[in-house]
Amino acid sequence: MEFAGRLRGKIINSLTIYFKLEKFIATNLLWKRFRIVYPLLMNILHIDSCALGDHSTSRQMTSAATAALTAAHEQATVLYRDLAASPLSHASGPLLQVISQRWDADIPMNAELRAEALQSVSLLQEFDEADVVVLGAPMHNFSVPSTLKAWMDRLLELRAATAIALGPRRNDVHVVLVTAGCGMLGLEPAEELMHHHESQLRAAFRHLGIQHLDMVRQLADLQQVLEFKRAA
Amino acid sequence: MEFAGRLRGKIINSLTIYFKLEKFIATNLLWKRFRIVYPLLMNILHIDSCALGDHSTSRQMTSAATAALTAAHEQATVLYRDLAASPLSHASGPLLQVISQRWDADIPMNAELRAEALQSVSLLQEFDEADVVVLGAPMHNFSVPSTLKAWMDRLLELRAATAIALGPRRNDVHVVLVTAGCGMLGLEPAEELMHHHESQLRAAFRHLGIQHLDMVRQLADLQQVLEFKRAA
Repeated sequence: MEFAGRLRGKIINSLTIYFKLEKFIATNLLWKRFRIVYPLLMNILHIDSCALGDHSTSRQMTSAATAALTAAHEQATVLYRDLAASPLSHASGPLLQVISQRWDADIPMNAELRAEALQSVSLLQEFDEADVVVLGAPMHNFSVPSTLKAWMDRLLELRAATAIALGPRRNDVHVVLVTAGCGMLGLEPAEELMHHHESQLRAAFRHLGIQHLDMVRQLADLQQVLEFKRAA
Repeated sequence: MEFAGRLRGKIINSLTIYFKLEKFIATNLLWKRFRIVYPLLMNILHIDSCALGDHSTSRQMTSAATAALTAAHEQATVLYRDLAASPLSHASGPLLQVISQRWDADIPMNAELRAEALQSVSLLQEFDEADVVVLGAPMHNFSVPSTLKAWMDRLLELRAATAIALGPRRNDVHVVLVTAGCGMLGLEPAEELMHHHESQLRAAFRHLGIQHLDMVRQLADLQQVLEFKRAA
């Protein structure tokens, strides 16, 4: 019990520190000054989720987008995450309870759950720290890959739980969503299905607080979408 | 190499036997005679996927549907599968290659992959053997739960790979989809989002060969949907 208590104390501390830090960043006016040098230090978060490896055109397109961005911004740093190669677990009931802050504090939290909760927080953090997120979110078997869904579950629940506490956030994050190119069934996805797929994604990212979202289906559209960075 | 060769031989044999059996059942006219006693031996496949346990109204609704069906058919057998409690792994690239019959036979298959492939086949088999499938497919974070997606990936890819080889199939399977009731974000899902969610599911099950599909959002609708069984 003593040990469990300390463990619980630790995760609550870690989460509290994170929430306080976030609040500090969100409310302190000082950070806005740092924004002046921000364009030089552009953070790119590049995420792939199609399970088909290099065959996938979604991977080729996210790759092309990241290459174009780094070519235009020499100081850019890229963080790459491959959700298919290193999948997150399916978000379990207990994990959802912890990250949505509904965990009953009387129940000891095991080490695995604690690690998963902290990982979820750091996933949201790396998303929030990015200036541009290049995300491969293809329609595979009529919806997003399950690995991408597991990632979205964590971010959406965490954002929902902390949205009220944290107040206004940065609203200049650009998300570039590549929605085509993980076809396995050999069918061209019908326009209507793609429209539904993209609408659901748009709603999800709106929920994450994203105001600048571009959908890219074809390589030809990529150029136009990346124009916003040329101007910056 | 010798051992790997034998392993490979085994899985190919297992899959081949399955495909042959399926073909036999699908093409042999004799099986139609057995259909006479079928209504007495109704097979119900009951699947839940919401991670929120008994709080989830989708679980309460699938449960109510199964209870109503078994009450009307005393001889019914129920197979229950809880995708949240016993999640399937995310369908990996190699697994998708195996079940869509694109695996390169020169590459040895490891035991885990072989087990996953055989499990996928048996998942499709239990789906095909059901007369009624009662499936909790709620919209959770803007799409199906990732655990349900992992299940659908296996069935859709396997069906696509075997559709041409097997010819006509049973077309009297009823699927009852419960699409509401796994809300975590505390928002009532907008009508438009629910419409998109249901359209994608409808397309997926059409792809699985399902002609009788009912969507249920509210407990009140369940009664009407289950009428088809009263008539049978």
